[in-house]
Amino acid sequence: MNIIAYAHNGFHDKFGIPRQAREDSVLETRIVFTDPYRQPEAIRGIEGYSHLWLLWQFDIPQAANPLEGGKGESPSLTVRPPRLGGNTRMGVFATRSPFRPNPIGLTSVRLLRIEDGDLIVLGADLKDGTAIYDIKPYLPWTDCHPEATGGFAEATRDYRLCVEWGSAAQEITEAQRLALNEILSQDPRPAYQHDPERVYRLDYADLHVAFRVADGILYVQEVRESRL
Amino acid sequence: MNIIAYAHNGFHDKFGIPRQAREDSVLETRIVFTDPYRQPEAIRGIEGYSHLWLLWQFDIPQAANPLEGGKGESPSLTVRPPRLGGNTRMGVFATRSPFRPNPIGLTSVRLLRIEDGDLIVLGADLKDGTAIYDIKPYLPWTDCHPEATGGFAEATRDYRLCVEWGSAAQEITEAQRLALNEILSQDPRPAYQHDPERVYRLDYADLHVAFRVADGILYVQEVRESRL
Repeated sequence: MNIIAYAHNGFHDKFGIPRQAREDSVLETRIVFTDPYRQPEAIRGIEGYSHLWLLWQFDIPQAANPLEGGKGESPSLTVRPPRLGGNTRMGVFATRSPFRPNPIGLTSVRLLRIEDGDLIVLGADLKDGTAIYDIKPYLPWTDCHPEATGGFAEATRDYRLCVEWGSAAQEITEAQRLALNEILSQDPRPAYQHDPERVYRLDYADLHVAFRVADGILYVQEVRESRL
Repeated sequence: MNIIAYAHNGFHDKFGIPRQAREDSVLETRIVFTDPYRQPEAIRGIEGYSHLWLLWQFDIPQAANPLEGGKGESPSLTVRPPRLGGNTRMGVFATRSPFRPNPIGLTSVRLLRIEDGDLIVLGADLKDGTAIYDIKPYLPWTDCHPEATGGFAEATRDYRLCVEWGSAAQEITEAQRLALNEILSQDPRPAYQHDPERVYRLDYADLHVAFRVADGILYVQEVRESRL
């Protein structure tokens, strides 16, 4: 497998990466091609598409792969989706879990612009530095199925937290606030932790944010620049 | 890369495979899992989804890869989509061409049923025997973008031939005729050949069909069982 590009964005660690991008996402990712694919010819005509597919590498240390199987089951064929509370086992091919026989992720993104030979896209659920294997145009007449119905994960898809900024909003620009708002409203807490007293910390781009969650509201306690 | 399954259908050679599946496709493909993935656990919950993604292997002999580049261009970064008449070069990442840095195809299919541990799907544009790398559920709220706009290929997407069966229709069942109708109406002729006198021959499943195309109408000249 050839790595054709790397993704660069503000998600320096996994915590906070949206599980599914929203259509109105404001979170930019820059796709930087590697040699020999970094040529204008390779993307000739791509500006004619509004959306693209990214095929990318799930960055999972082999030892961390929890596909250990359950009692009386074959190993490596089921996963426990966090959205189901972590106790229900689903077949690996019935989930988008990163723990798969071939660790390839699939994400549709919106193409915002081309800049210095890089693609700037919106809505990628990729960590900074993710290796990309392929980029394909999104073809609505073959890729879009509005009538599709979608299993268990659908039940929680509209779950959003209200984000209460308080005076912390004054520390950052409106663009920064909108980006963090998108990340925080998706509830970046680990699926099994719901302690209303606990303070969680998240880094995005050059910002560090601390928050609590209680009764469906996320309270921003602090936000500041985190990098030199 | 692990091969998790093989696709089986009536497309024993490439000629006639739909370039893009229609939502109302009647062409069935059977997905047969390989060991150790051939276990009920691996697809547990998959019946909750109406549509699936297949990630599969483009079966292209390395020597046949025409990514030779044009005058003054880097090699291997552009392709000539048949739909553009074969003369226009597009960037490989702006097409769904099989000739790519990593030969992985992406196709959404409709899940019809599960049968003896196999998945029966509709609308796959895969040749019989194609190796499959991954199956993922189609999640409409993240995979479906009705507002997406789609470049040059869009111009020809509604192109269909009328199929004139004549007396040949009497040789086959109605189900067979519907399947062949779907294949033939998409104009399986090579993109650069438009000789109205020429008789083309196509095999699908255990059927052999001969046809001519003139003035936007495909005339079936003969249809018969082709295999023992």
